[in-house]
Amino acid sequence: MKRTHSAPGDPGTVTGAHAVLKAAAAHGVDVCFANPGTTEMPIVRALDDVRAVRPVLGLFEGVCTGAADGFARIAGRPASTLLHLGPGFANGIANLHNARRARTPMLNLVGDQASWHLAYDAPLTSDIHSLARPVSGWVRTSARAADLARDTAEALAATTAFPRSPATLVVPLDFQQATVSGALPGRRPSPGRPAVDGQVVDECAKAIRAAHRCVLLLGDDALGERGQRAAAAVMEATGATAYSETFPSVAERGGGLPGLDRLPYFPEAARAALAGADLVLLAGALEPVSYFGYEGIPARLAPPESVTRLAEPGQDSQSALEDLAAALGATPPATRRCGAPVVPGGGALTPRSVGVTLTALLPEGAIVSVEGGTCGYPFFTASAVAARHTAMTNTGGAIGQGLPVAVGAAIAAPGRRVVALQSDGSAQYTIQALWTMAREQLPVTVLIASNSRYGVLRTELDRLGARTDGPASERLTSLADPAIGWPALAAAYGVGATSVSTVDELAPALARSLLADGPSLIELKL
Amino acid sequence: MKRTHSAPGDPGTVTGAHAVLKAAAAHGVDVCFANPGTTEMPIVRALDDVRAVRPVLGLFEGVCTGAADGFARIAGRPASTLLHLGPGFANGIANLHNARRARTPMLNLVGDQASWHLAYDAPLTSDIHSLARPVSGWVRTSARAADLARDTAEALAATTAFPRSPATLVVPLDFQQATVSGALPGRRPSPGRPAVDGQVVDECAKAIRAAHRCVLLLGDDALGERGQRAAAAVMEATGATAYSETFPSVAERGGGLPGLDRLPYFPEAARAALAGADLVLLAGALEPVSYFGYEGIPARLAPPESVTRLAEPGQDSQSALEDLAAALGATPPATRRCGAPVVPGGGALTPRSVGVTLTALLPEGAIVSVEGGTCGYPFFTASAVAARHTAMTNTGGAIGQGLPVAVGAAIAAPGRRVVALQSDGSAQYTIQALWTMAREQLPVTVLIASNSRYGVLRTELDRLGARTDGPASERLTSLADPAIGWPALAAAYGVGATSVSTVDELAPALARSLLADGPSLIELKL
Repeated sequence: MKRTHSAPGDPGTVTGAHAVLKAAAAHGVDVCFANPGTTEMPIVRALDDVRAVRPVLGLFEGVCTGAADGFARIAGRPASTLLHLGPGFANGIANLHNARRARTPMLNLVGDQASWHLAYDAPLTSDIHSLARPVSGWVRTSARAADLARDTAEALAATTAFPRSPATLVVPLDFQQATVSGALPGRRPSPGRPAVDGQVVDECAKAIRAAHRCVLLLGDDALGERGQRAAAAVMEATGATAYSETFPSVAERGGGLPGLDRLPYFPEAARAALAGADLVLLAGALEPVSYFGYEGIPARLAPPESVTRLAEPGQDSQSALEDLAAALGATPPATRRCGAPVVPGGGALTPRSVGVTLTALLPEGAIVSVEGGTCGYPFFTASAVAARHTAMTNTGGAIGQGLPVAVGAAIAAPGRRVVALQSDGSAQYTIQALWTMAREQLPVTVLIASNSRYGVLRTELDRLGARTDGPASERLTSLADPAIGWPALAAAYGVGATSVSTVDELAPALARSLLADGPSLIELKL
Repeated sequence: MKRTHSAPGDPGTVTGAHAVLKAAAAHGVDVCFANPGTTEMPIVRALDDVRAVRPVLGLFEGVCTGAADGFARIAGRPASTLLHLGPGFANGIANLHNARRARTPMLNLVGDQASWHLAYDAPLTSDIHSLARPVSGWVRTSARAADLARDTAEALAATTAFPRSPATLVVPLDFQQATVSGALPGRRPSPGRPAVDGQVVDECAKAIRAAHRCVLLLGDDALGERGQRAAAAVMEATGATAYSETFPSVAERGGGLPGLDRLPYFPEAARAALAGADLVLLAGALEPVSYFGYEGIPARLAPPESVTRLAEPGQDSQSALEDLAAALGATPPATRRCGAPVVPGGGALTPRSVGVTLTALLPEGAIVSVEGGTCGYPFFTASAVAARHTAMTNTGGAIGQGLPVAVGAAIAAPGRRVVALQSDGSAQYTIQALWTMAREQLPVTVLIASNSRYGVLRTELDRLGARTDGPASERLTSLADPAIGWPALAAAYGVGATSVSTVDELAPALARSLLADGPSLIELKL
């Protein structure tokens, strides 16, 4: 027997599920990246009514959480996810880990067993809070249906408060189904980034004047246009140099912005970059530490006594940098003029030629999601002279983030071209993202750096002095035998694809892809 | 600079990583399903030396944990996994959830930051214990390199002790690299299943004699051959009926064994099956409860006063059933003779015709991994008359288990044919399992029930009275638009594939696949 269902927006028959979605919509959430199951069906049903929230299906939860991360990085406001109990949430954890490191706001809605059913420990029952805490700044299971709207509002208040972090609201099935009052809690204005104290700015200005060698380390919003222009002013006035943090959440690049290098990944190179600095000034960046602990190499990459903080992540670093520039009497230099980048002459595809070709063809306003070192570093090196674009990187090191983040970015910014520059190994963890790109016909160009190996692990084996070419070292770091058939894989998910081996093949394929309405994939045979 | 590396087995230069693997091998672990990263490289290097442990690469961690589950279900002894810090572990949680519900022993080895590096909270650092506890009966981070061999032995003792559960050992990077003493802790004999007390058996015999209507509910090892034969004797002597638990970890089936139905999934049908029973006797099964909480339907499916336990999961249910049969003076009936099953006449492919065709062609000794309801239930209904085979189901409800479990089963039982009867939606969560099947050339026949929807969710929407065919209900339960190209997807991972729409196409394709040396996939267009 089917019940009569409520008309869209009919306040007379609001269920808990409707209350959650209406509260989310009232607080600005207009997308839900979903992979629901039985315990989320009332919310799915309510999405039929609450049309302000657009549902986007992922075939795997890591696609959903990564997409919500990418959405918020570009839109500046949270999306929601809809995940199925503990195991469904667990499949989203890796990209929530990245989102937490990116300080990305998002609302995870997780269904759970009916409250009266939990005690029976049915097969899908698990400790969701234990799973959620490591990747959520805020976790709550609603205690009754009447609390759902308020809990949703509080989750959104928590996730958008600086420094931001994902919030996870667990919603028992019976509360989703219950009829509740339609009253919604009022929307609190977003607090905005906390300002940096003027005294801190003055002390930093003094420190720069006194320093022999100052290095600015920019992160978080300092990598926005205003932050970079202010940093350029400081550099010109004081002779300071500057780096971007190694893995920025979003960074404006190209179009005459300063050509900031990222602080190198490996600690020897990072330490060399910072050696001799008597002032390492942090603007939105954390103190740099080595990614992993290598025997004999200190974890702290900057000379410890040199480290001084202008603004911490979450604070208003851009304004702090502008204030700093003003305190130093520095004015922004004229916009740097770059020679128009050109596609390199023909020849074999190399990470460098890929980076230069993409730089040359990248359209104004593109968003580039970079994951994997093979082509990622060479692209960053080349792309300072590209048209203005936004770069996103893997902030937490949990691989499988690049494609989902591209999905979210494309949904956040209709009209902007999205490029996913992606290594083959890491693409496999959330490969199902291709299907969502096809379903939603997102203008995403996926470039797969296909070298059929976990390149970074070969490097790490060498660093450990442990490379032996023994069977385990070889097979556990190889993606050959069999090589993945990238064009077939993309086609299976509804994404047109091609494979290129030379720059002469790449350039026209890339040009076509960048103009296509929907997604396409290019395998870069390296 | 490369270090001189130790010769295989050279006790003079044993690292912590070698100690872990040698201790694991000494306790019977001979496979490692691995998706390693930087913090596991010393263990990868040690796998070059400790040849007793076979490394098997998965492109996604859920493949590794599911494969270890399938391996242990068939081999009866634990495999190991090798996973990369918290996020890598998290990708394996869903299938660890299933393994915990299956009471499967396994050793998860998880690398972590160097112990001295943890405090710097580098990007990949996270609270691994909080992630591991919900799915592990035993969790420990080794406190020093010298403890690694002992910790590994204790993890294996814990995971093989009844009732069994996965064990997770977190191994900091520096301890893996450190030189340690080569001494290994001695292997403790496995305790075996605890016996059921004779008095319990006698009381159950008395209860059966007094009962008007007795239903046996068999689970865990009671679904082995001895358990089923003893149950058949009890049934014949007393008029009792019997069901298998709904989601057995492993069940022997066919070849003249009793044709046990599984207790139905939906609570109305399950309650009807048990209605009127004044004795529901549990042999290795938990008291049945509804999978989810449905308004107005009690969670407990058997009349509460009827529930009596002969043996709980983990106990020696098979011997308890034999003792029960003896106490009742019951003798096993003659082996049931079945007419040889035949391939149905041509016509459209339906879940029923798929089940009957597979039943007819299934070779003796096959292992069938079943995930998804579309073809799963009809196969169970049909397959009581199949040749003797072993069935495995999804024990915890976290989907994406069927293909990885098939990988593990194939590695556990060389020479046995493995069939993965798999729904299309659930296959997507761990689709990368196809690649491991191809790399290891496993004799797996993958059958994809391809109806381009999450069928169970459509059913659940109908049950909720919530099906509206609104845009969200429709799109969030549909896998069409675009339809997944299964043959291309399989080919991309190195697995030959075909697509069939009729029984006349299925039968020869299936017959060929069942004889192939390596894996192949058949899309069942339903």
